[in-house]
Amino acid sequence: MVTDPRNVFYLTGFRGSAGVAVLGESEAVLWVDPRYTLQAQQDARGVEVIEERGGLLKAVARWLGKKKAKRVGFEGDHVTCSQLRALEHEGRGKVRFEATSGLVEDLRLVKDDGEIALIRRAARVTVEVFDETVGEVRPGIRECDLAAEIEYRMRRKGADGAAFETIVASGPRAAYPHARASNKTLGKSELVIFDLGAILSGYAADMTRTLFLGKPSARTVMLYKAVLGAQRRAVEALRPGVRCCEVDSAARRVLERRGLAKYFTHSTGHGVGLDIHEKPRLAKTEKTRLRAGSVVTAEPGVYLEGVGGIRLEDTVLVGDDGPEILTPASMDRWIVS
Amino acid sequence: MVTDPRNVFYLTGFRGSAGVAVLGESEAVLWVDPRYTLQAQQDARGVEVIEERGGLLKAVARWLGKKKAKRVGFEGDHVTCSQLRALEHEGRGKVRFEATSGLVEDLRLVKDDGEIALIRRAARVTVEVFDETVGEVRPGIRECDLAAEIEYRMRRKGADGAAFETIVASGPRAAYPHARASNKTLGKSELVIFDLGAILSGYAADMTRTLFLGKPSARTVMLYKAVLGAQRRAVEALRPGVRCCEVDSAARRVLERRGLAKYFTHSTGHGVGLDIHEKPRLAKTEKTRLRAGSVVTAEPGVYLEGVGGIRLEDTVLVGDDGPEILTPASMDRWIVS
Repeated sequence: MVTDPRNVFYLTGFRGSAGVAVLGESEAVLWVDPRYTLQAQQDARGVEVIEERGGLLKAVARWLGKKKAKRVGFEGDHVTCSQLRALEHEGRGKVRFEATSGLVEDLRLVKDDGEIALIRRAARVTVEVFDETVGEVRPGIRECDLAAEIEYRMRRKGADGAAFETIVASGPRAAYPHARASNKTLGKSELVIFDLGAILSGYAADMTRTLFLGKPSARTVMLYKAVLGAQRRAVEALRPGVRCCEVDSAARRVLERRGLAKYFTHSTGHGVGLDIHEKPRLAKTEKTRLRAGSVVTAEPGVYLEGVGGIRLEDTVLVGDDGPEILTPASMDRWIVS
Repeated sequence: MVTDPRNVFYLTGFRGSAGVAVLGESEAVLWVDPRYTLQAQQDARGVEVIEERGGLLKAVARWLGKKKAKRVGFEGDHVTCSQLRALEHEGRGKVRFEATSGLVEDLRLVKDDGEIALIRRAARVTVEVFDETVGEVRPGIRECDLAAEIEYRMRRKGADGAAFETIVASGPRAAYPHARASNKTLGKSELVIFDLGAILSGYAADMTRTLFLGKPSARTVMLYKAVLGAQRRAVEALRPGVRCCEVDSAARRVLERRGLAKYFTHSTGHGVGLDIHEKPRLAKTEKTRLRAGSVVTAEPGVYLEGVGGIRLEDTVLVGDDGPEILTPASMDRWIVS
């Protein structure tokens, strides 16, 4: 029984905000509410669509009861405690619901050619939009206006929209890795972080660039080059068979050598696909080995409270023959004078 | 223990994508990962902020264990089965975790003056953006380009963005209550549904208008007037003490009298606030009574497969003295010739 909307889409082709799929050995059934009946019938080819006006999960539990199902796996990472209670209540103790973890997510770890083509398109839109917007970056413009421009251009280029709220964070705000775009205007001698990604046909891309407005100090240049070195090192490490934690430590070591490791307060990257954050995590403790066909980000950064921050991020395809950067916007032209 | 991001924001003022708050009789503690430490310290005044680099929930469970907490309520509607398992494992059987349901959501049912002011602003932006965009609606323009214009204008007017993916659905696509905006161009003699809402400082608004391009048939005029009548009837019914199901049936009866009830395939409305869909539901089976200070939508619609659809929706404040429409864009000027 699959309830996570991305997993439902992955398995059935139906892209709505609510739907429950049950996949057996010989059948696939999808429950949706009346808002989605027509769309589900059109999108989920080869799947029986059942329209339900009451609660979807309860209807599924009743159906499973009637079918005399004995054991049914559900998504323990997505089903809430309240939902499980409702399922068990409706199953009347005859259906045994068993929590599973990451079954569909593990299938999604390796992207097929069709998925890679879609991520490639989302990445291309992301790069084009950034390149067009760079020309407008100057002191006096508001962060939120740049974010609005970016998201508008994504849609005009055929994206469903932004895969996440676009970050434009300048000056001391750049020290917040997940700052929103605010009313703050860009100032002279400030770092500006742009973190953006389009989503297209359900698939996302993710990219970060950092610019400096004016003439950077020697220290700022050192910081930027250190992050750039760490990012390139991370990308280089993205090869089939390499452990995720090795990619993280490769990037981290570059910053360590400059005494900057303590300012790198998050992990090096994450998978990208239907979710903007999905498996695998490129983190210290993640021992999984990368596989060809995975798409991940490489995004080291340094954050200095009261001063600012620098993050550089690409979406990268782990290819058989090595890494392929899907978001090749320049990292060398970072000084806007 | 509060984990839902909206509920965490409601109680602490911290607006990030991840954070866990524990509220005791005499203390309030908020766990965040290093991305959010600075932001949390700034936003969550009077709350102790703890930075955690590992899993937040596990850290909370360990902390509760050390504090010798015996019973801890958690949000059963938001905590997943996997999360509960991790909590219980880390709590080592000494902390009893008890599922609660809707405690914070019930607090959020009645909005205070500050919240109403924010929803009012989000609603005003929504109306302004729609009124500005109406002038551009004509055959030949793509649905997705109108949606992009709408979301761009929301941001330019100071919104955080769109509270949900803007719907522009024309012709037969208007028969899908939750159609996305597609590449389809608007055609002559077509109905077009616009469902839009800005989000501003975390608070959302929600509004739907339907236009017709050209000269509508007598039947289309009849359908439109029936939905308009149902919508006005629903708004009228929004008074303190009225049961939610009574509002739903008031709207439904108007459509029934025209033999259209079978085309009204969803419920009449829902609460709006930090979530675009929150309590209360204005549905057939919802017996809760409305309270002054609730903000809800009134949005009946009819959907005819192969033909199109009509939906009209306002965000409405349930006032002491009666309903106040927060999204007063015209419903009378619906024919674009």
